[in-house]
Amino acid sequence: MKTRTVRLLVSCPDKKGIVAAVSSFLFDNGANIIESDQYATSRSSGVFFIRIEFEAGKELADADNFKRKFGPLAEKFDFNWTVSFAEPRKKMVIFGSLEEHCVLELLWRWKNGELPVDIPYIISNHEVLKSVADQFGVDFKFFKVDRENREKAEQAARALIRGKVDFIVLARYMQILTGGFVDEYRNRIINIHHSFLPAFAGAKPYEQAYQRGVKIIGATSHYVTEELDRGPIIEQDVERVTHKDNVEELKRKGKDIERTVLFRAVKWHAEDRIIVYNNRTIVFA
Amino acid sequence: MKTRTVRLLVSCPDKKGIVAAVSSFLFDNGANIIESDQYATSRSSGVFFIRIEFEAGKELADADNFKRKFGPLAEKFDFNWTVSFAEPRKKMVIFGSLEEHCVLELLWRWKNGELPVDIPYIISNHEVLKSVADQFGVDFKFFKVDRENREKAEQAARALIRGKVDFIVLARYMQILTGGFVDEYRNRIINIHHSFLPAFAGAKPYEQAYQRGVKIIGATSHYVTEELDRGPIIEQDVERVTHKDNVEELKRKGKDIERTVLFRAVKWHAEDRIIVYNNRTIVFA
Amino acid sequence: MKTRTVRLLVSCPDKKGIVAAVSSFLFDNGANIIESDQYATSRSSGVFFIRIEFEAGKELADADNFKRKFGPLAEKFDFNWTVSFAEPRKKMVIFGSLEEHCVLELLWRWKNGELPVDIPYIISNHEVLKSVADQFGVDFKFFKVDRENREKAEQAARALIRGKVDFIVLARYMQILTGGFVDEYRNRIINIHHSFLPAFAGAKPYEQAYQRGVKIIGATSHYVTEELDRGPIIEQDVERVTHKDNVEELKRKGKDIERTVLFRAVKWHAEDRIIVYNNRTIVFA
Amino acid sequence: MKTRTVRLLVSCPDKKGIVAAVSSFLFDNGANIIESDQYATSRSSGVFFIRIEFEAGKELADADNFKRKFGPLAEKFDFNWTVSFAEPRKKMVIFGSLEEHCVLELLWRWKNGELPVDIPYIISNHEVLKSVADQFGVDFKFFKVDRENREKAEQAARALIRGKVDFIVLARYMQILTGGFVDEYRNRIINIHHSFLPAFAGAKPYEQAYQRGVKIIGATSHYVTEELDRGPIIEQDVERVTHKDNVEELKRKGKDIERTVLFRAVKWHAEDRIIVYNNRTIVFA
Repeated sequence: MKTRTVRLLVSCPDKKGIVAAVSSFLFDNGANIIESDQYATSRSSGVFFIRIEFEAGKELADADNFKRKFGPLAEKFDFNWTVSFAEPRKKMVIFGSLEEHCVLELLWRWKNGELPVDIPYIISNHEVLKSVADQFGVDFKFFKVDRENREKAEQAARALIRGKVDFIVLARYMQILTGGFVDEYRNRIINIHHSFLPAFAGAKPYEQAYQRGVKIIGATSHYVTEELDRGPIIEQDVERVTHKDNVEELKRKGKDIERTVLFRAVKWHAEDRIIVYNNRTIVFA
Repeated sequence: MKTRTVRLLVSCPDKKGIVAAVSSFLFDNGANIIESDQYATSRSSGVFFIRIEFEAGKELADADNFKRKFGPLAEKFDFNWTVSFAEPRKKMVIFGSLEEHCVLELLWRWKNGELPVDIPYIISNHEVLKSVADQFGVDFKFFKVDRENREKAEQAARALIRGKVDFIVLARYMQILTGGFVDEYRNRIINIHHSFLPAFAGAKPYEQAYQRGVKIIGATSHYVTEELDRGPIIEQDVERVTHKDNVEELKRKGKDIERTVLFRAVKWHAEDRIIVYNNRTIVFA
Repeated sequence: MKTRTVRLLVSCPDKKGIVAAVSSFLFDNGANIIESDQYATSRSSGVFFIRIEFEAGKELADADNFKRKFGPLAEKFDFNWTVSFAEPRKKMVIFGSLEEHCVLELLWRWKNGELPVDIPYIISNHEVLKSVADQFGVDFKFFKVDRENREKAEQAARALIRGKVDFIVLARYMQILTGGFVDEYRNRIINIHHSFLPAFAGAKPYEQAYQRGVKIIGATSHYVTEELDRGPIIEQDVERVTHKDNVEELKRKGKDIERTVLFRAVKWHAEDRIIVYNNRTIVFA
Repeated sequence: MKTRTVRLLVSCPDKKGIVAAVSSFLFDNGANIIESDQYATSRSSGVFFIRIEFEAGKELADADNFKRKFGPLAEKFDFNWTVSFAEPRKKMVIFGSLEEHCVLELLWRWKNGELPVDIPYIISNHEVLKSVADQFGVDFKFFKVDRENREKAEQAARALIRGKVDFIVLARYMQILTGGFVDEYRNRIINIHHSFLPAFAGAKPYEQAYQRGVKIIGATSHYVTEELDRGPIIEQDVERVTHKDNVEELKRKGKDIERTVLFRAVKWHAEDRIIVYNNRTIVFA
């Protein structure tokens, strides 16, 4: 059996000896640490977070094996932990709507080898993205959404992807998901909101921004929760604007930020670099 | 009579020939345009804004003279206009409280010749800024504010400065002004709020920002209106933060942005570069 | 005859009355100013630059007419001037090589209506960009370049485009043009160099940047002159890097900056926003 | 004996088990890791760098003790290492000249508790900084430098500080140090250069930048080596400029960047966050 690249994410009550215990465990089992990042919320008490990426041989290169061996240590230190593997790559489904810029950016990066994922489907409530999907050889699924069938359309999409995807990207999807859907993919649905949250949550953020006369606009990528635009923020970025920029110009400039911010968030998720804690994210980028 | 540097700010309904009329007026009266900036809200109808800075000889180098000569033109085009002069410099009073970073930045810039103002007073409800004021040779006035005498203290400060200042800077003053005070200095009171407005208005913005888990913090300078933190925004800037930055670190990083943002806003105001329209600012920087 | 959008670019010795004269000329000929920007190198003497965009009726909506009418004024003030029209759009040819990111960005913006140009050809010394050109419906021309035929290949490309293009974009073309070619398209060939010029001119800038250990990388778009990477800079942008970024990572991050910087430069050129003076650019963006 | 905050910096050939060995050593000796950052130049072979900050009890809270205990481990893994302590704070001497902005920024941060150093002296070849030094209660030493006595003046300054300082900051000192001086304080002299190095090394960088027509200016903080402006870069930052900014304006904008960049570099050095390797810096910020 050849080696695998493994990522271990841990959060736990902070105490002495955690790093020594985990790194010794890995060394004793033949692993080679590639990257390691840690963070503690405070010096004395508090919560400790660590992400370790390592090359593992047969002892640890399998989720069940790893669990069996790592279990006692995890229990001793009261770890909240997950293990994941660089290969096979995560399966990501994109939900889009009418706007193509975010979808196109993700596909472009993906084609360039910058996004380590497979993309089984692009799903949309409009047909305009079909040609984009075709062009990149991705399966396109159209689910018409209107006022009456909203939940039914969501059900159909959920049925299609169940068991076939690891996470979901809402690339300007513009539909609100049901609580059941959100719950099924807890911390696995990434949205891009076209404002610097918490400013201008909800509809028409660029119109709101223009109205308020801000001098900087932004975009925010976050995990979706039951509360609209209130989930854990993964990444944000901004761009300077002036009084000369009308709503159309804000939208144009905003698109560039949305593309970048969403790409970064998706990349970090795909590489298991994010821990969610207390509705905030620890990003080991 | 020697020449004076004059600044003309105009807003009016957009129509053909405004620039020709104004620039011909200035040329015919011997003025030399130094800077000219304009902006129209839309191509056809809409509102037109122009700022012209020019050197004027005796014909225009006096407010009354200027008014008399410019009046008919202004009436013809329905101008909303103001004229001001680079010299004598505007008189600016600083209201501060416990934090010194914003006050210090303004004084430092001022001493370096970067802020074309005179500073008759620094006013505070605490005495800690006295040594700073002394060090720069500025008159320091202490007005104790407690729950009972809030309005009385404001009255005393207003009485002191009445007729002696052109505009007011709230350099982390932390007291809410009465409607009467705000009204007396309409679009002449500049505040610095320690967040990226409209996010985190009100108290403890850095605590709010930490709680929400934002990845970028900001500061906002705006004119004070009756509604708290809702006045026309003059300038904003931001700084990237990470999960590692606790509230104390956000405050530290935020101070640097507050200093810069407030300085820029004050400079532009002192140089008559700002027009307020519909609770937004046109800044000809 | 319907109205046309016209752009007038002027540089001249600074003196009183220029704005009055030009704006009165436009008003008297029925034009409506849309945008106007000006800049003078110094207060008293120096050089004056102005860009005016206006809607013109039949009096000025034709280059010959305009020239005839504007000539005397231009002569009086010693104007160095050009007039151009928003329609028909400029014809832009793209020269590419192996890397597709810059070409793709330009085509994408163009398709989205953000680049007001026509694109008669994409020319390349490699065939890899053909599929991109096809996808956007642009004519692709392949001119093989090897050591012996370098000049001949250039001659062939020049012959193809002669009389059919207004300006040329080198989108990571990687070939040095002959002096004759540069001279034929003076201030009409835009290059993107993958460094923050003047740092790391010439070959392998990311390797040079890594070697030097810079903490920020950049990209520079400039007009091509006879001296390699020494032409007038139109736009630059930068991105922060750390010790963790190896050469590959610098290249990846750099691509994003190159895309943005080149797009902005090309847009400004297409909209006649750039005046070149003393190997520097005045950009009225 | 109470606990001390200790910082261990290590570089070594990368191999398995380093983290396990070091963290186990620290745990076994009662230390508590506060921060840990690591970096390897490549996956398989290459060089490994680690910085660990920890609270140590009596076993490790003393340089000699630490050395004795850590020595065998360091030898086994071929560590290049240093240990340092948060207390007592490093002694920093500032060399200044005519410009006060960098000196003032450092003193201000220091007074605010943002720079964990003691400042035994401010040394200058001009007397203008004396009042600043006095104001912050720092000992000011004047060493006149003219063409004839350059080396003698340096000798006198070196004699004054010998044994009394840990590192030196050249806050726009503008004098070139002798090789002997540089060698005595290898990687302990921090300079601020007022350009984005390697662009515009040497004299008059803002004049050079204006001449070249760059659209962004910068500042660079680096360790001083024998080659002028060629030492390992610690930090850089930039600011956008336009054609409107003349040399004076570049200098004004540049000062703000210089202040920030120098402050960050000095802070990181004072907190032992920098490893120099191959004329590049690894900064664990």
